[in-house]
Amino acid sequence: MNQKIRLCEVGPRDGLQMAKGMMSAADKLRWIRQLADAGLREIEAGSFVSPRLVPQMADTGAILPEVLKIEGLTVVALVCNLKGAIAAYEAGAHALSFPVSVSDTHSHANVGKGTDAQVEVLASIVDWARAQPRPMRIDAAVATAFGCSLEGAVPVRRVAQVAAATALAGADEIALADTVGYAHPALVREAVRAAQDAVGARLVKLHLHDTMGLGLANALAGLDEGIRAFDACLGGLGGCPFAPGASGNIVTEDLVFMLESMGYRTGVDLPRLLAARPLLAQALPRESLRSGVAAAGIPKTYGARAAA
Amino acid sequence: MNQKIRLCEVGPRDGLQMAKGMMSAADKLRWIRQLADAGLREIEAGSFVSPRLVPQMADTGAILPEVLKIEGLTVVALVCNLKGAIAAYEAGAHALSFPVSVSDTHSHANVGKGTDAQVEVLASIVDWARAQPRPMRIDAAVATAFGCSLEGAVPVRRVAQVAAATALAGADEIALADTVGYAHPALVREAVRAAQDAVGARLVKLHLHDTMGLGLANALAGLDEGIRAFDACLGGLGGCPFAPGASGNIVTEDLVFMLESMGYRTGVDLPRLLAARPLLAQALPRESLRSGVAAAGIPKTYGARAAA
Repeated sequence: MNQKIRLCEVGPRDGLQMAKGMMSAADKLRWIRQLADAGLREIEAGSFVSPRLVPQMADTGAILPEVLKIEGLTVVALVCNLKGAIAAYEAGAHALSFPVSVSDTHSHANVGKGTDAQVEVLASIVDWARAQPRPMRIDAAVATAFGCSLEGAVPVRRVAQVAAATALAGADEIALADTVGYAHPALVREAVRAAQDAVGARLVKLHLHDTMGLGLANALAGLDEGIRAFDACLGGLGGCPFAPGASGNIVTEDLVFMLESMGYRTGVDLPRLLAARPLLAQALPRESLRSGVAAAGIPKTYGARAAA
Repeated sequence: MNQKIRLCEVGPRDGLQMAKGMMSAADKLRWIRQLADAGLREIEAGSFVSPRLVPQMADTGAILPEVLKIEGLTVVALVCNLKGAIAAYEAGAHALSFPVSVSDTHSHANVGKGTDAQVEVLASIVDWARAQPRPMRIDAAVATAFGCSLEGAVPVRRVAQVAAATALAGADEIALADTVGYAHPALVREAVRAAQDAVGARLVKLHLHDTMGLGLANALAGLDEGIRAFDACLGGLGGCPFAPGASGNIVTEDLVFMLESMGYRTGVDLPRLLAARPLLAQALPRESLRSGVAAAGIPKTYGARAAA
């Protein structure tokens, strides 16, 4: 069994885009450096989207050149259209995260077009990117894969169809995203299996929210089905602008604690990861950071287990 | 596969014993009635322990006669010695929860004697109870089964030995308790298997805390190993007086949401369960109640899934 887990810290993008308050570019950079120092090798550093709709991400282009200087770090940017993809490429992003929502209603609310039209945009981005001199990984984030606060339940068959469509459009990697936090472990297992049947090893990652308190249980269900990559956010910030009641991402600190305790290897140094919290807390005083491990402290048994 | 889950609400005992503030006997009774109205069929209503050490439980004997009038409810009381067991029997408790800590150090801190001596106390309680005219279930709670904040890691072999000793002493049912919240899913699986090997079907229940944010992931791991009974606490209150850093029990609301969503049957009506929170919040204004489901609201998909 593969014990190595790829974590993508999405705090600088998903964690900040809905935050109460703005984080300065200088603070973002300091924070991203701390995250990388803690051993995170993949960070979603921002997005190339409308600065009017998501003002917190307006400086993504400005900070990327500095973020790209961090050695060994894979820098991901979220984009919703070809214009954003070109901007991300020109800024030097190593990878794109591109949302394709299974829920047509959410897709319209989120990116201004339906699911099928958004898959066509993905294809056009892939075509454009393949013609450029520098390679760039293109990830499809299959959003509202476990339900939608606008449409309700989402059929697993439809999740597999959308995943297959993104694969056909040329996505390098595919993630299933629990955009509104409706997932539960049985549904995660079912949807992951269906997507694996449809796209095989191109289904790489889960993007989970902790809305109902089930985030890590859902991660465990994914692990059991062979998933070895997860998005997470320091302090569990985050949420979708267009999903009422949606709350934060799964907490990176607690996820690392769980995975390392279980014998998986994340490459993350947990005390150093906790040391990246104060800057975030100071920059966003109106947000409350979550994390059981941060509140209770790393238990004595952690090192022993992790080393065993 | 058995889809029926037995939930024991431990709020009136574990949830209140460490709470900031006192709940009146009248409020306790109203609250327990609300919990029973929501469909909970087993409630740990209090403990017969030193009123000096745990003043919040001093009125357990006074409220039990009223609690026992609730039809179809199994009323559990925690006791730590024979005197408490006799008092619980005389008050009419249907079942006892009796802690036996795997950690000798925690056992001394918690009940004033070591693990082996506490097993002997259990045997004396069983002998006494068997000689009484009315039957009373006696449950052993194998405490610090997944680690101890005083002793650190707890060998799984020792957990199985202590479980076996409680079975030999005559416990009807055995629970493994994550007293300090150090458990992780791999350890839950390992310890449950070891205890099942040692005591078979007498291993019935898990008592989990959410200290590190892993509570429901640990519950899922237990489910996968065949566990069909869980303790939980409304709003996730609770903690051990003698475990630094320990925090609340797993949240009944979120556990019910997870289990029912997955197709298990708890018998609990989730909206009614949420309706039991305001009284608790008013009675304990200095405590903050947790629950993802309460914060975000029950999603549209819940009924559909649960009925499917």
